[in-house]
Amino acid sequence: MRYAVLGTGEVGRTLGGKLVELGHEVSLGSRTKDNPAAAEWADNTGPGAGHGTFAEAAAFGEVVVNAVGGQVAVTALKAAGVENLTGKVVLDVSNPLAFEDGQVRLSPVESDSVGEQIQRAFPQARVVKSLNTVNCHLMVDPALVPGEHQIFVSGDDQSAKEQVTALLGEFGWPPHRVLDLGGIRTARAAEMYLPLWLTLFQHIGHPEFNVEVRRAH
Amino acid sequence: MRYAVLGTGEVGRTLGGKLVELGHEVSLGSRTKDNPAAAEWADNTGPGAGHGTFAEAAAFGEVVVNAVGGQVAVTALKAAGVENLTGKVVLDVSNPLAFEDGQVRLSPVESDSVGEQIQRAFPQARVVKSLNTVNCHLMVDPALVPGEHQIFVSGDDQSAKEQVTALLGEFGWPPHRVLDLGGIRTARAAEMYLPLWLTLFQHIGHPEFNVEVRRAH
Repeated sequence: MRYAVLGTGEVGRTLGGKLVELGHEVSLGSRTKDNPAAAEWADNTGPGAGHGTFAEAAAFGEVVVNAVGGQVAVTALKAAGVENLTGKVVLDVSNPLAFEDGQVRLSPVESDSVGEQIQRAFPQARVVKSLNTVNCHLMVDPALVPGEHQIFVSGDDQSAKEQVTALLGEFGWPPHRVLDLGGIRTARAAEMYLPLWLTLFQHIGHPEFNVEVRRAH
Repeated sequence: MRYAVLGTGEVGRTLGGKLVELGHEVSLGSRTKDNPAAAEWADNTGPGAGHGTFAEAAAFGEVVVNAVGGQVAVTALKAAGVENLTGKVVLDVSNPLAFEDGQVRLSPVESDSVGEQIQRAFPQARVVKSLNTVNCHLMVDPALVPGEHQIFVSGDDQSAKEQVTALLGEFGWPPHRVLDLGGIRTARAAEMYLPLWLTLFQHIGHPEFNVEVRRAH
């Protein structure tokens, strides 16, 4: 398949690299056409890896992955162009991290989420929130952490969630470890988990961890 | 030991009942002296179980457990009286649940927490946040759910956290499953987990679940 991965940070490059490794074609999108990180990534990743502006990448992709920060997600997707998103699955892996006075904050928080912001801004896109609850290396290699830990999906479009679930399967998350939280509104819950993730990160000392939901029955 | 458990709802009665079962003496505190739920609980629970006003209960307890809702926690503790809290461990198990227009909200959220509100209001109390991430039946019987799922503690006073960890051990949480998140500020993270808990509750269909933090190493 053809994927647009928007964002040239570690998350975007890691997701893009794994997608190419899986045999997909990827265009890594950024604000400018000549982004050095994107060019270097494409060169090092080899056949199947390209790059371009947000709009070029999104036009290329059959699926669009938002891997820019939550604060700039809607801006980046607007630059990608509504016409390049319409009808497509938009997988949002971002968190609403804001840095204020040396503190990490969430914005939006509780009464809204980045997932919902994107869905509202692009009603014809099929937005799915997922993968934001784990580090990017774990996103594409869940076996790094032992156990039956899970990954969440949120979205209003059931078939889009099924498509993302299939992609998660390619990454190594079998269907029984993909937990469907409900509509895109539940992205709030997944995004509000972030402070606990950050606190656990400090406690554990590295980002290779995840939670396994255990239940009585 | 002598415990004050403030709050006559299901959480308070369940915690109080378990404490009595463990051989402790409990005074279940409420706003009024003649609270029928508290009287019935004391009658049914038998020797070791008493009840009284917030102030009477707090005066009785060597440890004070806040089991009233997060919205009214500081008010209840003010009624309990600063003189009855000074120097004592105050175990806060509440969540900042607010009900608005048929929606569940958190208040405070993100920039504050109930745990911190209590610690600020009673600087001489030794506040520990814990148990708010699981249903009350699981609080006192973690074996209801299989696996090495964990419980969190937050607090500024290390010896208070050790005392709470010992109590958690009596409830069935061994020390290696008690995860110290850090100072009372980390109560924010534990309280912000609640929307995910509520979403998982809807998904799973019952409240007997918890998360196990799995790590690479």
